[in-house]
Formats: sequence, structure tokens, C-alpha cells
Amino acid sequence: MTKTKAEILTIGDEILYGQLLDTNSQWMSAELDSIGIKTIRKTTVSDSREDILTAFREAELRADIILITGGLGPTNDDLTKPCLSEYFDSPIVMNEQALKELTEFFSSKGRELNEVNRLQAALPECSDMISNPLGTACGIWIHRNGKVFVSMPGVPHEMKRMMTDTVIPRLQQTYQTDVIYHKIIKTIGIGESWLAELIKEWEDNLPKHIKLAYLPSMGEVKLRLTAIGDDLDALKSEVQSQIDKLLSCAEKYIYGYDNDRIEGAVGSMLVKYGKTIALAESCTGGYVSHLITSVAGSSEYYRGSIIPYHNDVKIHNLGVKEDTLKAHGAVSEETVYEMANRVREQFNADIGVATSGVAGPSGGTPEKPVGTVWIAYADREQTITRKLQLWKDRRINIEATAIALLNLIRITLPKSIEIKE
Amino acid sequence: MTKTKAEILTIGDEILYGQLLDTNSQWMSAELDSIGIKTIRKTTVSDSREDILTAFREAELRADIILITGGLGPTNDDLTKPCLSEYFDSPIVMNEQALKELTEFFSSKGRELNEVNRLQAALPECSDMISNPLGTACGIWIHRNGKVFVSMPGVPHEMKRMMTDTVIPRLQQTYQTDVIYHKIIKTIGIGESWLAELIKEWEDNLPKHIKLAYLPSMGEVKLRLTAIGDDLDALKSEVQSQIDKLLSCAEKYIYGYDNDRIEGAVGSMLVKYGKTIALAESCTGGYVSHLITSVAGSSEYYRGSIIPYHNDVKIHNLGVKEDTLKAHGAVSEETVYEMANRVREQFNADIGVATSGVAGPSGGTPEKPVGTVWIAYADREQTITRKLQLWKDRRINIEATAIALLNLIRITLPKSIEIKE
Repeated sequence: MTKTKAEILTIGDEILYGQLLDTNSQWMSAELDSIGIKTIRKTTVSDSREDILTAFREAELRADIILITGGLGPTNDDLTKPCLSEYFDSPIVMNEQALKELTEFFSSKGRELNEVNRLQAALPECSDMISNPLGTACGIWIHRNGKVFVSMPGVPHEMKRMMTDTVIPRLQQTYQTDVIYHKIIKTIGIGESWLAELIKEWEDNLPKHIKLAYLPSMGEVKLRLTAIGDDLDALKSEVQSQIDKLLSCAEKYIYGYDNDRIEGAVGSMLVKYGKTIALAESCTGGYVSHLITSVAGSSEYYRGSIIPYHNDVKIHNLGVKEDTLKAHGAVSEETVYEMANRVREQFNADIGVATSGVAGPSGGTPEKPVGTVWIAYADREQTITRKLQLWKDRRINIEATAIALLNLIRITLPKSIEIKE
Repeated sequence: MTKTKAEILTIGDEILYGQLLDTNSQWMSAELDSIGIKTIRKTTVSDSREDILTAFREAELRADIILITGGLGPTNDDLTKPCLSEYFDSPIVMNEQALKELTEFFSSKGRELNEVNRLQAALPECSDMISNPLGTACGIWIHRNGKVFVSMPGVPHEMKRMMTDTVIPRLQQTYQTDVIYHKIIKTIGIGESWLAELIKEWEDNLPKHIKLAYLPSMGEVKLRLTAIGDDLDALKSEVQSQIDKLLSCAEKYIYGYDNDRIEGAVGSMLVKYGKTIALAESCTGGYVSHLITSVAGSSEYYRGSIIPYHNDVKIHNLGVKEDTLKAHGAVSEETVYEMANRVREQFNADIGVATSGVAGPSGGTPEKPVGTVWIAYADREQTITRKLQLWKDRRINIEATAIALLNLIRITLPKSIEIKE
């Protein structure tokens, strides 16, 4: 089977001049990869008619599918639509379906269409419109001589929604593709090189048509298995049997698969054990609560949080003893111990967790340099504390503390249930 | 002066297949931009000899400078060096300077060179070596017929060090470059098309050498002015006088410039007026607190937050009246009014703000569909509430509410101070 080839074309001066990081093309190529379409090139060109038309011509010679983002807004510097019109020699005309959806979009917001917006529903005559439920610029699908051009807005959440709802399913209908099956195994609490050592024998014995990639990110390492063949069910069961073998040597680091996230894994665990949780976040400033509440349905187990940034709030609103703060400071085992227990009691939760640390860039001392963080887990039976020694960067310290706290809950909760039983 | 043009070429399957986000090319193009070299295209190709050679040929036709990253490692899938050798018809020979530096690099780590490493010091004969103080792959500089090819490793910190120490200074010596000056104006609380209408006359009257671009993101629109000329100070003052004109028609939507963020702008405002703030976040689940505390130094004005997700916590810990919740529900003007006032009092802050809404995907009713959100601002003198009708997507609703709340603080705080005075 000939492999279907795609090229991703990004249009925009802001990307060429380095003012904006292009995250779209990574996401898009990963989606294409998951349905067996190979991205053979990524190109970024400026908001210039000539450059865009040249890029169209070159891409069409190389690829079957040309995915374009950017340059689709309502203003004068948005050239993608006129360029598509010129390239396909197809005049821009009002698309009734696009106008209907745009009108509905505006009326759902209680607003009227203005003339600039109305023009966003005009498309090259040869194109099909792609619905954009999250914005005002609809997408464009043009199929000619076996090649497909797709134009989408550059706003990431709008583009992603269009890809997922419309473009990916329609590409799968249009092209016969190899069967590729990916499975991602999510690990936490172990570094890439230690994990590689731990699972070396398993990795060396993987069959040739199943490939392994290590994808490290903050506090986590994803293992991606990619199996290629012609029978999806067979691939799935082969991959599953490899995962079973992996579990026998690395189970304690694995919290989930594919799109699972650690905050979702912790949430499922709380649902399973019928426990509720409350948080007292100091140095993480609400970030862990944000992760927990980003999970739909979290109201089932999440009671709430207090973020006692100022010591007054720690004392008067949370109930940490003034003596504890005076004797040990806010960043200490004793303080974080009390914070976790007080929030558990006050918010009437089964589990209380807490963070306190020096996130930086300032506030460090010789004994407690920037990156010193204490975290705690408390339930009715026990309180567990951990000290972390992190980095110099505020953002990284906040994120790494959040991952460590969620992992502490993941590890401690099942043990705690066992002890009780 | 003819503008010097650069093309950035990234080599690597891991970027094409979406396994790795390319952050290098953004950084490189921003560096080039800062010395007046225009990036006209960015291209990513696979680890394939043919694709690399084709990309070399195409880039040389378009650009004066071709910056290449990736494919410079010691393993068989690293093809950049053999491709440069083939393209310039120049054999790979041992470079004595490179070998000397590589030997020193290894001995500084207490290690001996092995044969694989030794070969990293062999370069196409026509090239100058570029020192890599942070790694084992030195860079390559080839100057032929007025065009420069530069090849660097893909490891970001190694590439950045080479660019800063060697490539940028050498490009400045080689090319006379134009002066480019960018200024970004950050607006909030107005959509792209309304903003375009509002500033149409100003936009139409911009001089030819100052260009405008609209860069929309969640709840915000950035305006980027790019001025091209030969005198940086003159460009700066021309851009400033355009901004002064813009302020006269759109001041109320402008919160900052360049790398300013709305949470930072609100923070600066609180510092300026000497006010403290506390938050009661329900539907945003800690996200606004996270944004506020992501600003270094926020402990100066941020007292803390409560996230009363469960109604019990709203009543018992925050002090919202049970009757209010019963009569109007958690998502109501009355509840969010009390939340903002209670958190202000309880946390002893000058300002209290609050959010309550149906983030989704479930929990909607015919009267309060998913996306219904109330926000409030309270100080000693007044309480302001706003209703938002947002989208169906949980993540987007959380982010859009956060932006709206920060903007409400930005708008209300200075007025509130005026009223008082």
C-alpha cells in the first residue's frame, strides 16, 4: 500500500519572526500519524501572496494532503482565502451554510453580525465549508485531482476541534491507509534513564513491527508503542500482551494510558474508594486545584481548597498555629503537616493535602534555597510528608510540585485503604 | 538596502511525526530578527538524504543564509554532514581544531574519546568549525558564492550557545543589515473584528514602512507594529507616536505591551494603588489564583483564595448564606455577590473577586446552560457583577472566565479609586 503523504503549511509573519511558537503543527502531525498518514514536510511562510502561492504549488507536487493553518481571519493581513481562490481559479462567494452557522454563533452570544464578520462566510466557490463551533472563521476543504487542501484558523483550540470533528474522519474516508496502532503508557516518579534500565530486557525483546519511543515531560515519562500491520485487532492484542509483560516489571510507575492524566487517575482512584479531598496550597498557588478541577465530574470527590498565601490567612482562616510558623517557618515539615490536617478537618474531607515552598525567583535563604518545597498527605489514620529540592525557575517549581503531590496521593491512598482494612 | 534573507531548516523525523515540539526555530528567528535579518521560510524535512538535498537546493535559491539544526549526532541516522559534503562536493576530513576542542571537552569530563566520538571532529573540507562548548557535535559554517550555510545540533542549549557566541556575530560581520523594530500592543475585552472596525482610520493612515498585524488568542487580541528603516531611534519614536494616536481611540482596551500579561498588569495596578486582593473561585477551580501567583512578587498584594467547590464549603467556610443558595442557586448573581464580599472580609483584603458558573460538560439546565458564568468584584465601596455566556468546552470556559475576571479587575479598580478620591 502506498503511504499517504501530508504536508503542513503554516502561514504567518508572527511565526516567521519568532513572536509566536508554532505548537499547531506538532499536534497536527501527531494526529495524522495516528491514522497512518505520513507528514513529509512542514513549511512556514509569510503573509505574502507570492510566498503562499509558491508554497501551495510546491506542496501539491510532493504531498496528497496539504493542511494549512493561519491567515484566515477577517482582517486585511489574512491572505489564505484570496490565495486559495486564485490558486484554484475559483471566485469567493457567500457560502449559505457558513453564513447560517455564523449567524447562529453570533445570536447564541446575543450579538449581531457586522459586515466584517459576514464576509468570513464567503469562501472560494470550489470549497466545502468546515464548521467552527468555537470561532468565527470556518474552515475550507478543497478536493481536486486526488489532492486535498484543508485550510483552518491558527487559533489552537479552534483548529483542534475542526481536526477532531471533521478533518481526521474525512481524511480517513478519503484515503486508504496502513493500519497503525499507537498505545501510550504513562509513567510517573521515575527518570527516563532509570526507566530505560528497568525495562531494558522487555524493550530488547519487542517484536520488529512494534516500536518503542520514550517521551519525557515534566515529572513524567510516556512510553509510546507503535505497531504497524494490516489487522487492527491483531495489533491491539499483540500490544496488550506486551503491556502485560511491562506491568510485571514496572507496574508501580504506571498510572494510565493514552490521554489519561495524573489528575484524572487520582480522581478515578478517589471515586473508586469513595473518598473526598481538600487542598491547602501555598507555593503552588492554586495550580493543583486547577488540575484537579480540570477533570469533568471532579465535584464528586473534590470539596474545595484554601490558598493561604499570606501567613495571616494560614493562621486565621486555615488554623495553622502561630507558634508553628514562628518556630519552623512557613516552609517546613511542621507547617505543611498542620496545613494538610486543618484543611481536611475544616472542609470535612477524607483526605487533606498541602504544599509550601520557595517557588522563586526570590525568597530563598541559605537553609531554604529557592526550590525547597514541602508537601503533605493526611487522612484520618496517618500523615505523610515529603521534602522536594527543585529548581531555580518559578514556573517549573510550581508544575513539578503539583506532579509530585498528585503522585504522592496516587501512591499513598491505596496503601492507606489497605492498612485500614 | 536589500534585505538579507534567511531560511531555517530543521531536520528530523521526531519533529515531522509530532513526537517533539520544535522550539528552536522560534528562538532562532527571533535572534535573526533582532539583527535585522528576515526569516522568509521555515522548513522541516525528514532524516532522508534526498529530502535534505532537495531542501538545500530550494533554500539556496530563495535565501542568503540557511540555518540548519538537527541530524548532526554520531549515529547512522544523522545525515546532515554527509549531505553537506555531497552538496558542496567537499570530502569529509578530520578538522584539527575540532579534534583539539573535542579532546579537551572529553578530558574535562574525565573521559577518553572513542572512535565514534572522534569522527564527530571530521567535517566537510570546505567548512569552518563552530565551537560547541556544551556538547560533542561541533557546528559547521560554509560560505560559498555569497551564501552561508550553518549547521548546528538540535539540542536547544547547545544550538543557542553557538548562535550567541559565534553565528550571530559572524552574520553581522558578513551582511549589512536593515533595522527592524517591533512593538506589540496587548488588548483585551474586544473581539478582533470590532477592534478592526474601531481602529480602521488609524490603520489606514499608518505610514508604508510600519506594518500592522492582528494576533488573536483566548479573550485577547495583540496588535503588532513592525517598522523597517535604517535608524533604530527614529523607528522607535515613530512607532511611539503611532501608539499615542492609537491610545486616543482604543485606550480602554489596551493593558500592556510586548511580553506583558494581563495577570501581571493587574498585579502592577494593585502595587500602584497599594491594594490587596483575595479570591473565591468556584467554576474556575483555582485557575485565576494560579495565574495571579505565577507572577513573581505576587505575595506583595495577593492574600489568598478559597475554592468553595462544594456548597457546604460555600456556607460553612466562606459564609455564603444557605438561604441565598437555596433561593438562587450557586450559579447566580446573588451568590457570586456574597462570595466576593465574604472572601474580602474573611481574608482581610481590600478587594474580593469571585467566580461561579457551569463549566461543563454536564450540569447545565435550560435556564443555566453549560457556559453560564457569574463573576464579581467587591471593594469597600461597591460590588460589581457580570454575567458571561460562554461555550460548551470546560477548559475554554475556565480560561475565558479567568481572562474576563482579570479584565473586570483591570477596568474597575482605577474607577473605584477615582470614586473614592
